Amino acid sequence: MHDSFEHSTMIVPRHSRAMLGLAGTALAATLLLASASAAAWDGLVEKQVFEMEEYTTVGGETIAPVRIGWEAYGSLNEEKDNAILITHFFSGTSHAAGRYAEDDEAPGYWDAIIGPGKPLDTDEYYIIASDTLVNLNAHDPKVTTTGPASTNPETGEPWGTDFPLVTIRDFVEVQKALLESLGIEQLHAVMGPSMGALQAYEWASAYPEQVERLIPVIGGGVADPWLLATLSGWAAPIRLDANWNDGDYYDGEPPLDGLREALKLVTLNANHWQWANETFDRSWADDDADPTRELGARYAIEQTLDDIAAARAELADANHLIYLVKANQAFIAGHGDSLEEGLARIEAPTLILYSENDLVFAPEGVRETAELIEAGGATVELVTLEGNRGHLDGVVGIDQAGDRIRAFLSD
Amino acid sequence: MHDSFEHSTMIVPRHSRAMLGLAGTALAATLLLASASAAAWDGLVEKQVFEMEEYTTVGGETIAPVRIGWEAYGSLNEEKDNAILITHFFSGTSHAAGRYAEDDEAPGYWDAIIGPGKPLDTDEYYIIASDTLVNLNAHDPKVTTTGPASTNPETGEPWGTDFPLVTIRDFVEVQKALLESLGIEQLHAVMGPSMGALQAYEWASAYPEQVERLIPVIGGGVADPWLLATLSGWAAPIRLDANWNDGDYYDGEPPLDGLREALKLVTLNANHWQWANETFDRSWADDDADPTRELGARYAIEQTLDDIAAARAELADANHLIYLVKANQAFIAGHGDSLEEGLARIEAPTLILYSENDLVFAPEGVRETAELIEAGGATVELVTLEGNRGHLDGVVGIDQAGDRIRAFLSD
Repeated sequence: MHDSFEHSTMIVPRHSRAMLGLAGTALAATLLLASASAAAWDGLVEKQVFEMEEYTTVGGETIAPVRIGWEAYGSLNEEKDNAILITHFFSGTSHAAGRYAEDDEAPGYWDAIIGPGKPLDTDEYYIIASDTLVNLNAHDPKVTTTGPASTNPETGEPWGTDFPLVTIRDFVEVQKALLESLGIEQLHAVMGPSMGALQAYEWASAYPEQVERLIPVIGGGVADPWLLATLSGWAAPIRLDANWNDGDYYDGEPPLDGLREALKLVTLNANHWQWANETFDRSWADDDADPTRELGARYAIEQTLDDIAAARAELADANHLIYLVKANQAFIAGHGDSLEEGLARIEAPTLILYSENDLVFAPEGVRETAELIEAGGATVELVTLEGNRGHLDGVVGIDQAGDRIRAFLSD
Repeated sequence: MHDSFEHSTMIVPRHSRAMLGLAGTALAATLLLASASAAAWDGLVEKQVFEMEEYTTVGGETIAPVRIGWEAYGSLNEEKDNAILITHFFSGTSHAAGRYAEDDEAPGYWDAIIGPGKPLDTDEYYIIASDTLVNLNAHDPKVTTTGPASTNPETGEPWGTDFPLVTIRDFVEVQKALLESLGIEQLHAVMGPSMGALQAYEWASAYPEQVERLIPVIGGGVADPWLLATLSGWAAPIRLDANWNDGDYYDGEPPLDGLREALKLVTLNANHWQWANETFDRSWADDDADPTRELGARYAIEQTLDDIAAARAELADANHLIYLVKANQAFIAGHGDSLEEGLARIEAPTLILYSENDLVFAPEGVRETAELIEAGGATVELVTLEGNRGHLDGVVGIDQAGDRIRAFLSD
């Protein structure tokens, strides 16, 4: 469990690991890796874990150890220059594509564009995605993350709010260590939606020479005041739940009511009224409970949002949500004081996808981000996404931009 | 306190009441009323109270007594046909214009368009506004309302959640009783913003022959699923506060934390990112508390929203907020099952003012409302409001529509 990063045995991609078992030597593995890249990815994913013995945050705090889950689709070529990093959204995980088992109900969130022959073509690229620090879904067996719910080896107890605040830059630094452990120094592209867009901007600003293409989706270069307030609203229900107990709940009842309500707000804000009004009507949740006559009776849309939130809350951790809120609020591309300077450091050709109906990231802010990157000398293309989901059109409607993404990646 | 509606002594307008004192007879008062209508309104408002010995809700429940506050600007003419009813928004009161004292910090919310020579010209019209049932600001000394925080005479204790659920139609019925107590049978116009628009639609649908003009502002003809969910989000923080205790808190600590958070959401949803991003930056609330380093530290916009919410919560009641949520959720013009039929009953020429940036009432819904009223045979004019406040442009930016409103009222 506490192997150092250098000695970790958990950092070899799935296909090559299977082959290591067959071949038995590192040399043979290297040779086989090259041939593996010719084989089509079969769509089945194995979650893997990357571990660092310790990690010092950009803020100067040490976390030991750090473990994060990751998965990959396609094969890393011999030159190790065909990697595309996918960075996940606020409530997401590294499960960007494929299925863990044939009978999985749904594939990863961007499966529509990741796979053999798809825009992020796994016959050509090695697509890799990792769970962030303080990932929301700390109790999902498929997620490995390090955050307040993780055991602090010094105490043998969960970190709780002793866990240091982390930033989007920290997410990037841990991803960078993961990639280096695989020998990847250069990224064909970095691409992610929402909080994933923030990570993508940060990658391209912090390591401009290592990022060849940048594809931020439904996200701007900074947490603007609107986003600061929206995120504050997401954290609030947890803080209101008496079980939260200032973050100290790991030996008692977790603040599930607050967590559910927080996730309900996340779902609502990430959508749009067009979705709500085209998907629902004024039906009651229960035909026998008239919401106009009973204080506790509700409408179908309320019940559905509650049900979605309850299912998500089962896998989530309340403190992790609050830490994610803080990380997103802290975001300004380049991790300095000047957005202009942070974005001007980006050198990669940039393709920004966004929705004019986004209620989380103001479209004006996305357009301004594009202008500032362009002002710094990089080329930027801004493409709007259509749909009735608002912010979420960047997740569920990404296929509409498939051709543009494909062309951008091959430029 | 428990005078019947017929015998109430509190239903005479301010100017005529003063004159009654001088003249001493009802006949003299009637004569003086006529001359009073020629005097300019001086901008000073006296809150008055209307009482009904009992009121039976549209749902068949009895509330006894019902008391609501009201105020008026200008003078009722002899024919009693110059009255314009102003209906208030979710967190508003009957204080639509003027000041209670010369040194009041701010006048009523629509003072920009109500007064001598203004579009709602008090030299010409008698403008009257009343507090609704379950008014949010139950603890504002200037507000009189009846709701869960009111004493139930049968028990001598606050009603709490024994108070029956009420609807927008109930608000209208109580207003109608108030107007009848003043001898007003005909309304020159009904006009209100947001929840006030709902009351206005309801008036014109329920009593088409008594409403000569209809001016709904920033509101649609029905609580659509988006609004159902948004309102649900407003109620949630109160339900999460342990002090709420299923609404039974009047002999203990009120759920102020939940109420504050609810009001913070109301403020945020009623605004727009353009306002947030043009008004605030990423400043910290406290120069010594870096929000990126301290879990409890916050940004200036969070602090400001919290401060606004805290000030509002001082005067508000948490159960009243939940009852208002239920009343708004229940709304469909005409109080039936069909929006088409409810809106088709409207006969009054209609001027709808709305914002394309409204995040509470979807602009598509407002436009559809206009179409359905028109389909029923009434004339409708739809005018957009500009500004950076979103929904609130209908409150703080109403002056921009002043000329249009003036012309509509004199048509």
